[in-house]
Amino acid sequence: MTLSRFATRLNSFGSAPHLFWPDLSGKPTFMQMAERAATAKGLTDVDLNFPDHVTDDAATVGRRINDLGLSVNGLAMRYYTNPAFKLGAFTNPDKSVRREAIDMTKRGVDAARAMGADLMTLWLGQDGFDYNFQLDYAEAWDLEIDGIREVAEHDPACQISIEYKPDEPRAHALLRDCATTLLAIQDVGAPNLGVTLDFAHALYAGEQPAYAAHLIHRRSKLLGVHLNDGYAKRDDGLMVGAVHLRSTLELLRQIRRDGYEGALYFDTFPDASGLDPVAECETNIETVHRLLSVADRLDADNRLGEAQSRQDGVASQSIVNAALIASA
Amino acid sequence: MTLSRFATRLNSFGSAPHLFWPDLSGKPTFMQMAERAATAKGLTDVDLNFPDHVTDDAATVGRRINDLGLSVNGLAMRYYTNPAFKLGAFTNPDKSVRREAIDMTKRGVDAARAMGADLMTLWLGQDGFDYNFQLDYAEAWDLEIDGIREVAEHDPACQISIEYKPDEPRAHALLRDCATTLLAIQDVGAPNLGVTLDFAHALYAGEQPAYAAHLIHRRSKLLGVHLNDGYAKRDDGLMVGAVHLRSTLELLRQIRRDGYEGALYFDTFPDASGLDPVAECETNIETVHRLLSVADRLDADNRLGEAQSRQDGVASQSIVNAALIASA
Amino acid sequence: MTLSRFATRLNSFGSAPHLFWPDLSGKPTFMQMAERAATAKGLTDVDLNFPDHVTDDAATVGRRINDLGLSVNGLAMRYYTNPAFKLGAFTNPDKSVRREAIDMTKRGVDAARAMGADLMTLWLGQDGFDYNFQLDYAEAWDLEIDGIREVAEHDPACQISIEYKPDEPRAHALLRDCATTLLAIQDVGAPNLGVTLDFAHALYAGEQPAYAAHLIHRRSKLLGVHLNDGYAKRDDGLMVGAVHLRSTLELLRQIRRDGYEGALYFDTFPDASGLDPVAECETNIETVHRLLSVADRLDADNRLGEAQSRQDGVASQSIVNAALIASA
Amino acid sequence: MTLSRFATRLNSFGSAPHLFWPDLSGKPTFMQMAERAATAKGLTDVDLNFPDHVTDDAATVGRRINDLGLSVNGLAMRYYTNPAFKLGAFTNPDKSVRREAIDMTKRGVDAARAMGADLMTLWLGQDGFDYNFQLDYAEAWDLEIDGIREVAEHDPACQISIEYKPDEPRAHALLRDCATTLLAIQDVGAPNLGVTLDFAHALYAGEQPAYAAHLIHRRSKLLGVHLNDGYAKRDDGLMVGAVHLRSTLELLRQIRRDGYEGALYFDTFPDASGLDPVAECETNIETVHRLLSVADRLDADNRLGEAQSRQDGVASQSIVNAALIASA
Repeated sequence: MTLSRFATRLNSFGSAPHLFWPDLSGKPTFMQMAERAATAKGLTDVDLNFPDHVTDDAATVGRRINDLGLSVNGLAMRYYTNPAFKLGAFTNPDKSVRREAIDMTKRGVDAARAMGADLMTLWLGQDGFDYNFQLDYAEAWDLEIDGIREVAEHDPACQISIEYKPDEPRAHALLRDCATTLLAIQDVGAPNLGVTLDFAHALYAGEQPAYAAHLIHRRSKLLGVHLNDGYAKRDDGLMVGAVHLRSTLELLRQIRRDGYEGALYFDTFPDASGLDPVAECETNIETVHRLLSVADRLDADNRLGEAQSRQDGVASQSIVNAALIASA
Repeated sequence: MTLSRFATRLNSFGSAPHLFWPDLSGKPTFMQMAERAATAKGLTDVDLNFPDHVTDDAATVGRRINDLGLSVNGLAMRYYTNPAFKLGAFTNPDKSVRREAIDMTKRGVDAARAMGADLMTLWLGQDGFDYNFQLDYAEAWDLEIDGIREVAEHDPACQISIEYKPDEPRAHALLRDCATTLLAIQDVGAPNLGVTLDFAHALYAGEQPAYAAHLIHRRSKLLGVHLNDGYAKRDDGLMVGAVHLRSTLELLRQIRRDGYEGALYFDTFPDASGLDPVAECETNIETVHRLLSVADRLDADNRLGEAQSRQDGVASQSIVNAALIASA
Repeated sequence: MTLSRFATRLNSFGSAPHLFWPDLSGKPTFMQMAERAATAKGLTDVDLNFPDHVTDDAATVGRRINDLGLSVNGLAMRYYTNPAFKLGAFTNPDKSVRREAIDMTKRGVDAARAMGADLMTLWLGQDGFDYNFQLDYAEAWDLEIDGIREVAEHDPACQISIEYKPDEPRAHALLRDCATTLLAIQDVGAPNLGVTLDFAHALYAGEQPAYAAHLIHRRSKLLGVHLNDGYAKRDDGLMVGAVHLRSTLELLRQIRRDGYEGALYFDTFPDASGLDPVAECETNIETVHRLLSVADRLDADNRLGEAQSRQDGVASQSIVNAALIASA
Repeated sequence: MTLSRFATRLNSFGSAPHLFWPDLSGKPTFMQMAERAATAKGLTDVDLNFPDHVTDDAATVGRRINDLGLSVNGLAMRYYTNPAFKLGAFTNPDKSVRREAIDMTKRGVDAARAMGADLMTLWLGQDGFDYNFQLDYAEAWDLEIDGIREVAEHDPACQISIEYKPDEPRAHALLRDCATTLLAIQDVGAPNLGVTLDFAHALYAGEQPAYAAHLIHRRSKLLGVHLNDGYAKRDDGLMVGAVHLRSTLELLRQIRRDGYEGALYFDTFPDASGLDPVAECETNIETVHRLLSVADRLDADNRLGEAQSRQDGVASQSIVNAALIASA
C-alpha cells in the first residue's frame, strides 16, 4: 500500500531534551535519539546520516534500530568529516579530496546494504560555487557526473537518490533543481539512480512540487519524498502543511497516482526552536493522514478531473475547498 | 458587524465576456462590468478607479452603482492618464507633472465624497526608481510626503489610504512595505491617513500579513484589506486561499480581533487567464465565509491562546488543523 | 567574429516619442519605430514579433528593415491575438485553440524564412498554470512537446529557439528554467531546436547565467542571448550591467569561449518609464564593448584560469577587480 | 575623515588554519584569530561577540586587542548560551529567560564600555516566529520594545545599534527590515539607539541599501555598516562587490554624503568554504578603496547630480559606467 510508511530526521530528537530525559547532561547519543523517535506513534522508519550515525558495525546499528520497532529507510551522505569538503565533495579541486568523498560514499552504500536498506541519498550541497569566476563550469559538471557514476556503479543493487537543493552551504549548488538533476542523471546513465524531492527545496527553487514530482516520475524514479514546509525563500524546516497546505495535498495526490511506494520522510527542524520533536512528528503524521483522506474524497468522483480538463481553476479551487476545509 | 462587506475589482468582470454577453462585440463598458458584478451572490460593494471609472458626474455614477444594489466602498487613484507619470506621480522630477498628479488626486477625493464613499486609496506605484543612481532619495522622500500631505489636507473628512507594494511598475517603489508606509504616514502627520494591506503585496514584501496588519492597527489605521493570493514572488492575483490558506485565516482572525470594520476587497485577476469572474468572486466570498467559521471555532475556547502563551508552534498547528481541515 | 551583432526590442522605440517625433500624435507605427532604432549607433539587427510586426508581406517587411541598414535577426512569437490563448497556446485545453496557436507559429516560421532570418524564438509564457489542481501535468507536458515538435518539423531549415521564463503571464510556466527546457528539447528530439537565454529570466529563475549558458551549450544549442538586468525577482528590463555587472561579464566571457556567434539582443524596457530608447540602446552597446574589453584583459594571461583550478574565489575576485574597476 | 576605519568578523579567521598555523591541532582560540586578523593590511578594528569573545575581564581583552594594533569597534550580542533562547531572547515566552537575555545584554554593554568601545550591536534574530498562530504579535512587540528600552537606559553613554535581518534563525524576525526597526526605535524613544545596516540583509529584505541607509540617517542614526554581498535570497556572506558592485558603490557614496563616520565592518564568511581570510579581508579593503575612488570621480563634477534631477537613469548609468569600468 502506498504512502503508509513514515520516516523522520533523527537529529530532531535532541530537541527539548528535558521533556524526555529529565536528568540528561550533555547531548543525547544517536541511539538515545532513536529511542525517543520510536515513541512517536505512527512512525515506521528512520533515515541515518553517514558516516555520523553509523559509528559502529552497520549491521549492528541496523539491528538496534529494528529492535526499537523501526526500519531503516535508507542512509544519507553528509560531507562534513573533512573541512576540505567545504569547497566540494565530488567537484573538489583537489583530486585526493574528491577520492576521499567518493570512497566514503561507497562505504556508505556498503553500510546501507549491510542494514538491508538499499537506498542511499546524496545531497551534494558542497558541490557548487559562491562567486562568479570561481568555477570552470564545464570541468565541474564533468567531475560531478563522474563521481555520481562511480558511486552508482559501485553496487547496482543499491538505489542512489539525488536530493537537490538550490543553495546551502554553497551560494549556488550545481544540482540546484529538479530538472538539472534529471539532466545529470541522464548524463550518468546508471539504472539505479533516482531523485529525492524535498518539499521546501522545491518551493525555494521556484518549483511547484507536484509538477516537479511528475517530471521526476516520467523521466527517472522518485526514490524519496521529504515533507516539510517553508516560506519559499530558504529551507525553513517547518511542519507539514504549515504554509502550503494545498500544494502539499496536491503533491500527495500526485505521487500516489504516479505509484510512489517509498516512505514519507519528515525533514523538519523542531530542534531549531526547541519544540517537542515527538509531538511535532505525530502532528506531521496526523496532517498527512488528514490530507490523504481529503485526497480520497477528491478521487471519489470525477468532478476534479472534469474541471482540470478545462483547466478551470475556479471550479477546481471550489471542489478542493469543499473537500479540504471543515464546515461547522 | 465586522467582515460582512465584500468588494471587488471591477475590471475583472470583463473576463470571459461570452459567458455574460453572448453577442457583445468589443470591450464591455465600465457600467456593463458593474452590472455583471452585481450578479455575484454576496457581493455588497465595488471600488472604482479614478479617473478611469468616473467619466461622468460622480454623484450620477455613484447612483447608478447603487441602483445595481451595490455600494461604492471607495475610489482608487490610477496614474496612467499622462505618459509622464511613468517617471513618478508625486515624486516626478517635473514640477508641473507633480502638480497634475496632486490636482487629479484632489479631484478624485471630491468624486469619492460626491458618491458618499469617503475613502480614497492611493497606490503610488510610479513613485520609485529603477536604477541605482537614478534618484536623490532625500528629495524623493520629501516630495512624496509633501504630495500625500496636500492630498490629505484637501478634505479631512475623506479617509486617505496608502496601499503599499514592493514594485511594479517601477523596479523599486518608495513605499514598498508596511513599515516604510507607516513612517511616511507619521511624517505627513494628518489624522485622515491610513493603510491598505494587500495580501499578495505583503507576501512578496516578505511580510507575514497578520503581523503587518497588527503593526498598522497599532500605529495608524487599517483602512482597506485586499484579499487574494500568490506565490510570494509577484502580484499573482490568485483567488483567496489559493496558496496560503493558513496565513489568510490568521489575517482574517487578526483584523477581526483588532476591530477592522471595512470591506474585504478581492484584488484578483481572473481576467489574466480568462476565468469566469462571477464564479471566481462567489468562490472568494465562500472561502472567506468558510475561514471565518474556522476562526469562530478557534475563538470558542482558549486552547489556541494557551498554546500562543508558550509560543508552542506544534500545539497551535494541531489546534488549527483540527478546526481547519475537514474530516471524513 | 563573435559578439559583434547587436539586436534590440523594437517596441522600446515608442518611448519618449517627442524626442524623435516632435509632432507625432498617436502611437508610432512599427516601421516608424524601426526607423528610430536605425539611428542607434552600433545597432545591427532587430527581432520582429509575429504576428504583430509582420502585418504586410514578410519579404517586403524584411526588405524595408534592410533598407534602414538593419538585418532581421529573427522573429519571436507572441500569443495575444486570441483571448483564448490566455489559458495556453500549445497546452490550451481546447483543441481548436491549440491548432490555431500551432498554425500561427508555422506561419511565423514561414515569415522568418521569407525574410532570410532562419530563426524563430518561442516564448511559451501562456503554457503553464496559476493554481494547484488546475492542470493535469502529464497531459500538459505531452501537449507542449507535441506542439514544439510539429513546429520544429514544419521547416527543418529554420532554427527554433525556446526562451524560458519562470512566470508571466501565468504564475508558473511549464518551461520555467534552463534545465526544464533542455528536458523538453530532448523529448522533442528535433535537430533544429535550441534555447534563448534571457539574463533577467535566468536571474529570477535562481540561475547563474554563465552556468546556464554552458549547460545549454553542452546539451543543445544556444540560439539567442537576451541581455538586460534586474533585481532577480521579476523581469525588470533594466539596462545591461545595471545590477549584476560581474555576472554579465562572466556570461559574455562564457558564451564567447563556447563559440556563440549569434546576436546580443537587448530585451530592455526603456518605455516602461519613458526613457530615451536611442540613448538607452547606445549605452547598452557601449557597456558590452567595455565588458568585452575587460574579458580580453582577463584572457590575456592564465592567472584567472589558475585561480579557478583551485576554485580560489578570493584570487579570482581580485583578478577580475583589477581588470574591471577603473583606477584613478 | 569618513570611511577610513575597517573592521572585521573575527570568527572568519579560523578559516584555512593551515595557512597561518602549520602545526595547529584543534580550533584556534579567539585571541589567536585576532592575532591573525591583525596581519591583514589596512584593517584597523574588530568587533567582538558577547559573551563568546569576552571570556576574560573586559578591559584586559580590550588591551590585548589594542596590543595587536587594533581597536575594538564595538561588541555584538549573541544569544546562544541558553538553548531556551531559541524561542526568543527579549520576546521569550518565559519571563525568566527574558530576564536572562536582558541582563546578559547589560553585562555586554558594561563590557563594551570597559573596553572604551561605547557601541553595542543587537541582532535580535531569535525574536520572531516560525509559524502562523505561534505568536501573539501585540504582546511580542511590547516585549521587544520593553527589552530594548531597558538595555538602552542601562547606560545612556553606550550607543545601542539594532541590526535587522529578515530571518535566521527564526523563519520570520520581528525586526525584519529597516523601516520596522525604525518604528521600534521610535517606540522605545531612547536617544542612544540607532541602526546597523548589513548589505546582504538589506538585499534579501528587498531593499535598495543606499535608500535604506538614507531612511536610517534621516530618522535615527546609522551606527554600523556591514559590508558583504550575496544573491538577495539569503545571507551569503560574500566578499564586498562580489555581486552588486554598483549598489555597493551607491551605498558608500550615500553614507559618505550623509556623514557616516563609523567603521566599515566586513561581515563575510570565508570560513564557510575554507578561503584564506587574510587575503579575503585585504581584497575587501582594496575593493572599498577602489570604489571610494570611483565615488570621488563621480563627485568631481555635477553631471551625476544633473542626471538625477531629471531622474534620467540612462544618463546616470552612462556617467557611472565611465567612472567605474576600466578602459583598455
